[in-house]
Amino acid sequence: MVRIGIVGAGRIGQLHANGLKNIPNVEIAKISDPFMENVKDVFASFTGTELVTAYEEVMVDESIDAILVCSPTSTHAEIIQAAARAKKHVFCEKPVSSSVEETENLLQITKEEGVLLQIGFNRRFDPNFLKMKKLVQEGAVGDVHILKITSRDPAPPPVEYLKNSGGLFFDMTIHDFDMARYMTGSEVIEVHAVGANLVSPEIRKIGDIDTAIITLKFANGAIGVIDNSRESKYGYDQRVEVFGSKGKLTVENERHTSVQVHTEEGSHAEPLKNFFLERYADAYTTELQGFLRSIETGEPLVCAGNDGLQAERIARAAKQSLDTNQPVVITHEG
Amino acid sequence: MVRIGIVGAGRIGQLHANGLKNIPNVEIAKISDPFMENVKDVFASFTGTELVTAYEEVMVDESIDAILVCSPTSTHAEIIQAAARAKKHVFCEKPVSSSVEETENLLQITKEEGVLLQIGFNRRFDPNFLKMKKLVQEGAVGDVHILKITSRDPAPPPVEYLKNSGGLFFDMTIHDFDMARYMTGSEVIEVHAVGANLVSPEIRKIGDIDTAIITLKFANGAIGVIDNSRESKYGYDQRVEVFGSKGKLTVENERHTSVQVHTEEGSHAEPLKNFFLERYADAYTTELQGFLRSIETGEPLVCAGNDGLQAERIARAAKQSLDTNQPVVITHEG
Amino acid sequence: MVRIGIVGAGRIGQLHANGLKNIPNVEIAKISDPFMENVKDVFASFTGTELVTAYEEVMVDESIDAILVCSPTSTHAEIIQAAARAKKHVFCEKPVSSSVEETENLLQITKEEGVLLQIGFNRRFDPNFLKMKKLVQEGAVGDVHILKITSRDPAPPPVEYLKNSGGLFFDMTIHDFDMARYMTGSEVIEVHAVGANLVSPEIRKIGDIDTAIITLKFANGAIGVIDNSRESKYGYDQRVEVFGSKGKLTVENERHTSVQVHTEEGSHAEPLKNFFLERYADAYTTELQGFLRSIETGEPLVCAGNDGLQAERIARAAKQSLDTNQPVVITHEG
Amino acid sequence: MVRIGIVGAGRIGQLHANGLKNIPNVEIAKISDPFMENVKDVFASFTGTELVTAYEEVMVDESIDAILVCSPTSTHAEIIQAAARAKKHVFCEKPVSSSVEETENLLQITKEEGVLLQIGFNRRFDPNFLKMKKLVQEGAVGDVHILKITSRDPAPPPVEYLKNSGGLFFDMTIHDFDMARYMTGSEVIEVHAVGANLVSPEIRKIGDIDTAIITLKFANGAIGVIDNSRESKYGYDQRVEVFGSKGKLTVENERHTSVQVHTEEGSHAEPLKNFFLERYADAYTTELQGFLRSIETGEPLVCAGNDGLQAERIARAAKQSLDTNQPVVITHEG
Repeated sequence: MVRIGIVGAGRIGQLHANGLKNIPNVEIAKISDPFMENVKDVFASFTGTELVTAYEEVMVDESIDAILVCSPTSTHAEIIQAAARAKKHVFCEKPVSSSVEETENLLQITKEEGVLLQIGFNRRFDPNFLKMKKLVQEGAVGDVHILKITSRDPAPPPVEYLKNSGGLFFDMTIHDFDMARYMTGSEVIEVHAVGANLVSPEIRKIGDIDTAIITLKFANGAIGVIDNSRESKYGYDQRVEVFGSKGKLTVENERHTSVQVHTEEGSHAEPLKNFFLERYADAYTTELQGFLRSIETGEPLVCAGNDGLQAERIARAAKQSLDTNQPVVITHEG
Repeated sequence: MVRIGIVGAGRIGQLHANGLKNIPNVEIAKISDPFMENVKDVFASFTGTELVTAYEEVMVDESIDAILVCSPTSTHAEIIQAAARAKKHVFCEKPVSSSVEETENLLQITKEEGVLLQIGFNRRFDPNFLKMKKLVQEGAVGDVHILKITSRDPAPPPVEYLKNSGGLFFDMTIHDFDMARYMTGSEVIEVHAVGANLVSPEIRKIGDIDTAIITLKFANGAIGVIDNSRESKYGYDQRVEVFGSKGKLTVENERHTSVQVHTEEGSHAEPLKNFFLERYADAYTTELQGFLRSIETGEPLVCAGNDGLQAERIARAAKQSLDTNQPVVITHEG
Repeated sequence: MVRIGIVGAGRIGQLHANGLKNIPNVEIAKISDPFMENVKDVFASFTGTELVTAYEEVMVDESIDAILVCSPTSTHAEIIQAAARAKKHVFCEKPVSSSVEETENLLQITKEEGVLLQIGFNRRFDPNFLKMKKLVQEGAVGDVHILKITSRDPAPPPVEYLKNSGGLFFDMTIHDFDMARYMTGSEVIEVHAVGANLVSPEIRKIGDIDTAIITLKFANGAIGVIDNSRESKYGYDQRVEVFGSKGKLTVENERHTSVQVHTEEGSHAEPLKNFFLERYADAYTTELQGFLRSIETGEPLVCAGNDGLQAERIARAAKQSLDTNQPVVITHEG
Repeated sequence: MVRIGIVGAGRIGQLHANGLKNIPNVEIAKISDPFMENVKDVFASFTGTELVTAYEEVMVDESIDAILVCSPTSTHAEIIQAAARAKKHVFCEKPVSSSVEETENLLQITKEEGVLLQIGFNRRFDPNFLKMKKLVQEGAVGDVHILKITSRDPAPPPVEYLKNSGGLFFDMTIHDFDMARYMTGSEVIEVHAVGANLVSPEIRKIGDIDTAIITLKFANGAIGVIDNSRESKYGYDQRVEVFGSKGKLTVENERHTSVQVHTEEGSHAEPLKNFFLERYADAYTTELQGFLRSIETGEPLVCAGNDGLQAERIARAAKQSLDTNQPVVITHEG
C-alpha cells in the first residue's frame, strides 16, 4: 500500500485524485490547497482523505510515501524541495520550474535525498505513442531520418494564464520537445524556431507567440520539425510521424465515435476530441501506475527528472533562436 | 442512494460490480453466487458488500432497491420472479429466458408488481450506436430503406456453453435483432434465415450453426440483413449501416491505437479490438447509469422488458425459418 | 491487326470506340446505327472508320474479325446470331438476351461457328476487383464463408428505359450475380429475394422494384448477400467484401480526390464518383484488351458466354423468389 | 489546330507526345533528339510527325506554333532563346535554367518576343491540388497560418544524374517551393534549411544532401515547412496540408486499389503509387491542355515563367541557408 499526498486541488489535482481510485493498493492520505474551501465538495466521496490548506501539512505526515505536485509552476521548486527533504518521492507536472538552473538544482536535491522525481509528460503513456515508441525501438522503420510532430491546441488559454506560463515553448511545445527526445531516443543538439502571431493580438501584446515551426537536429543525425498553433478549430490536433530508412510510422487523431454521414454533399465525420483531458484520459492513469510501480519495484522511471530538464533546455534554446533568428546549439556532455 | 444486489458473480457479474464503482450514489449491498468461495478474492476491495451463496438472501434484504441478474439464462425466470415479488427493480442480461412464453409471463409479473425490468442489450449504449440512433431519429439519412448489421465473434465459445445457449440466433444474433429494432425504430414483421456450418464441426454435432445471413422486413417498409460468424480472425467485427432516402450512416470497428506502419510491403494497422468486454467497455457502465436514472427519476428505460421479448420472438422466427427454409411472418397487434 | 465492327453508336458504343483508340494494333472498320445521322459528328476524328445505318453492312464486311454489340438488349439475339454465322467473334454488352432459353441458343450457335463470345461484365476488369479476385484465389482469406456485395446506383434510369429493362434483377443486379460467381469461383445453387418500392412510385407502377436484398447459397458451401438500391444520394456505391476462414478482403468506393476539409463542424470528404462510366473507366478499356488478347492468342476469355448465361439464370431465379416469396433452387449438371 | 514541336525525345518527351494524342485540335509536327536513332521505334504510331536530330530543324519550321522543351536542363537556355526568337510559344520542363540570372534573361527575351512561356510544374494540375487551391481561395480554412508539404521520392536517381541536377533544392524541392507559392498565393520572404546525408554516402560524396527540412516565411505572414527525402520505401509520398484560422485542408497519398486484407495480423493496404509519372499521370495531360488553351484564347497561364524564376530564387536561398546555417531573406519589389 502506497500512501499519497496531493499538493494542489485544481483541475489536474482532481484528475489525479480520481485516477488513483482505479489503481489498487494506493491511498490518498492528504490533499492540500490554499483555496480548499472552494473545491472541497469535489472530494466528498474521498472518505479517508484529509483535506488541508497548507502543503506543509502534507510534508510532515510521515505515513505519506509520495507527493503529486499539481500546484502552479511558480510553486514547484519550493514544494519539490520540501518533499525531497521529507524523503518523499515526487511526481511533478511539467515544467519542473521556470528556469533551467533551478530545475538542475532540484534534480540535485532529489538525487541527494535518494527520492524519485517523475515528470508529468503524460503523452509518453498514451497507448498510441507507447506503441509507436516500441515499434521504433524494434526497428520497424529502421534508422530514424525525420521526426514530425504536429501539436495544436483547440483554443488559447486565458491571457492571464499565458502571462505566467513562460511562453509557448515552455508551456506548450515542451510536451513536443519531450516527445521528440522520447520517440527518437536521441538528444536534441540544435534548434531553430520560427514564430508568428496569427491567432490573437492579445498574445502578441504580452510578448508571446501563438504559431510556431521549430526545426531540430538530433545527436544521432536525424532531423525533425514541430509545428504548433494555439487555435485549431477542428479540435485538439496531436500527430506524430517517424520516417526512417525502412518506412514510416504514423499516429492519427482520435474522435469519440466512428459514425460517418454520407449524403449528396459528401462524407462527414465528427470533429476531433477537443480537450487534452479527454484525448489523454488513459495516459493520466497509466503515468500514475508507472510512478507507483517504480516506487514499489525500483524499476526505472519512464519519465524522470532529467527528461524534464532536457525539455526545458530545448525550450530555452528555442526561445533564444526565436529572439535572435539564429539556430542555437545545445551542448551535451560526453 | 440506490442499493443494489447482484445475483451471479461470474465474468459479467464482476464487470457490473466494477462498473458500479465509477457511478456515484450507488452501493452494492450483496452479491450472491453458489460458487462464491471460488471468486470471493475478486471482491476484496468491495468493503461494505456482503458476499453470499444463495440468491434468496438478496431478495429478503429489504434495503435493496434493485437486482442485477448475471446468472446463467436457465435461472433467469426464477430469479426475476422472486425479485419482482420482492418489489425490486430488475436489470437482466439477455436473453430474458429460453422461451418466448416464459418471457411474456415474466413481463406480466414485473408489470403487476410495478417494478422496472431492463434488458442488458449493452450495444444500445455504445457511443457509436447512440449517436447513429440519434442521427437516424433526426432524419440525417431520411427514411430508412436498408439496414445492414455485421456481427462476427472473434472465436466460438466452448461447445459445452453452446449446448445450453439456445443456438446462434438466441445467443448471438439476439443482440443484432435488438439493434435492428432499435436503429430503425420499427418492428420486424418477416424473417428469412440462411445458415451454414463452416467454422467448426463440433458446432454442427450439437445441432447448431456457426455462420448465418438473416433477411428482415420491417413494419415501416424498410428491409434489412444481418450476417454472423462465430469466428473472425481479424477481431470482433461489429458494424452497422443505415441506408436511407438521403444517404447512409456508417459505424466502423475500433482498434486500440491508430498506429500504422508503412513499409515497402504496404501500410499496416493493428487488428480490431478482440473481445466484447473491451469493445463495449463504456457501454456496460452507461447501461447501468441509465437503469439507475430510470429508478431515480421515472424516466422511461432505454431497453425495457418488451425489447427483450421482441428480440426473442425474432430469434424464434429465424430458427423456424432456418428449419423450414421458408420466410416466417411475425405478427404484431395493433 | 484486328479489325472491329461496332453495332450501336449510343453512349456505350461511343465509349468503346474511344477506348479502342488507346489500344495498339486494332482498327475500327465500321460503326452501324439506325440513327447514325444524329451522332455522326461524335465520330469526326475516326478517320478510316465507315459509318453506316444497317448492322448487316458490318456483317458482310469480310475484313472484320470481331463485333462489339452495343445496341439495345432486344436486338442482341439477332445480331449475335448474324455475327456468329459470319464467323466473327462477338463482344456483347449484358444481358445477352431477355430470356435464358434464347441465351442458351446463342451460346450453342457461337459454339457451332467456333467464334468467341465475351460478355460485358466490366467490373471483372476493375483493378480493385481484379486484385481482390487474385487474393481470394491465392487463399489470402482461406475458404470463403460469406460474400457481401453492395451495389447502389446514384439515381434511377428513366421509367421508359426501365419498362424494357427486364426489371431490377436482369438490368442491375445481374452485374452483382456475375461478381458473386466470379469472386467465389463457385456456382449459385439457391436464391432468396426480398424487394421493396421505396425510391419511386413510378417504378412500382411498371411492376418493378427499386430496393432489394438477395441471399445466395453457393455450391462450395459459402453463403452471400447482395443489397441494391436505385437511388444512392452520396454517389455510386460499389463495395465487395469476402469473408473467410482466415480473415476478410474489402474493396471501398472511389472519390475523385483525397481532399478533406476539417473545421469546427468536423471532417468532410467529397461525394463518391457518381457515374458508372467514371467509376469503371479503366475497366472498359481493360475488358476490350482482354477480348483482343483472347482473339489473338487463344487465351481463355475472362468473361465468356456461359458467364452471361449463369448470371441470367440467377436473375430469373431471383425474380421467381420475389414473386413467390420462396427460396428458389438453381440446378447445375454434374 | 495548334502545331507542336517537341525538343527532346527521352522519357518526358515521350510522355508529352503520348499525352497530346488525347487532346483534340493539336498536331505534333516534329520531334527532335540528337539520339533519335535510339528511340525512333517508340514513335512508330505517330504518322504525320517528322523525327529529326537537330532542334534547329524544329525552329525553322514556320508551321509550328509552340515548342515543348524536354531536353536536359543545361540545354534549356539555348533552346528557349531560339524558340522565342522564332516567335514560338514555349512549354519548358523545370527548372528553366541552372542560374537565376539566366532565367531572368530568358523571361526578358520571351517577353520581348511576345511569346508565352509555361513552366512544367505539373503538380499544380493534379486534381487533388487543384481542388485544394480552389478551397483555399474560397476561404474554406480562412487565413492561412501554416503550410506543410511532405515530398519524398521512392528512391534516389543515379548519382550521374544528380551530379548535374543542381542539388536537392534545384532538382527536387523546387516542385515544393512552387507548391508553397501556389497554395498560399503569397511570396516566400525568408528561408531556413536543414540538411542531412542519411540515405546514400554516394550523394554526400558529390556534395549534395538527401534529406532536408526547409522552413519558410511568407509575405502574408504565414509560415511553412517542407520535408524531403530521396528514399521512401513505402512509395512516392506527396502530401500537402494547409492550416488556417478556420481549420485545415489535407491531401493524402494515392494507391492503385482500395483492397485491404484483414487477418489475425491486422489490416493491410498495398504500398503507395511508386512513380511520379503514375502519381501525376492526369496532371501531365491537364498541364498541356492549359498551355494550349492559353495559346488559343489568351487566357493567363496557370504556371508562367515568373513562377519558374521565383521557385529558383527560393532554391538558391535554401542552398545558401544550408551552406551558412543562417536564415536567408528573399527580397521582392514593392
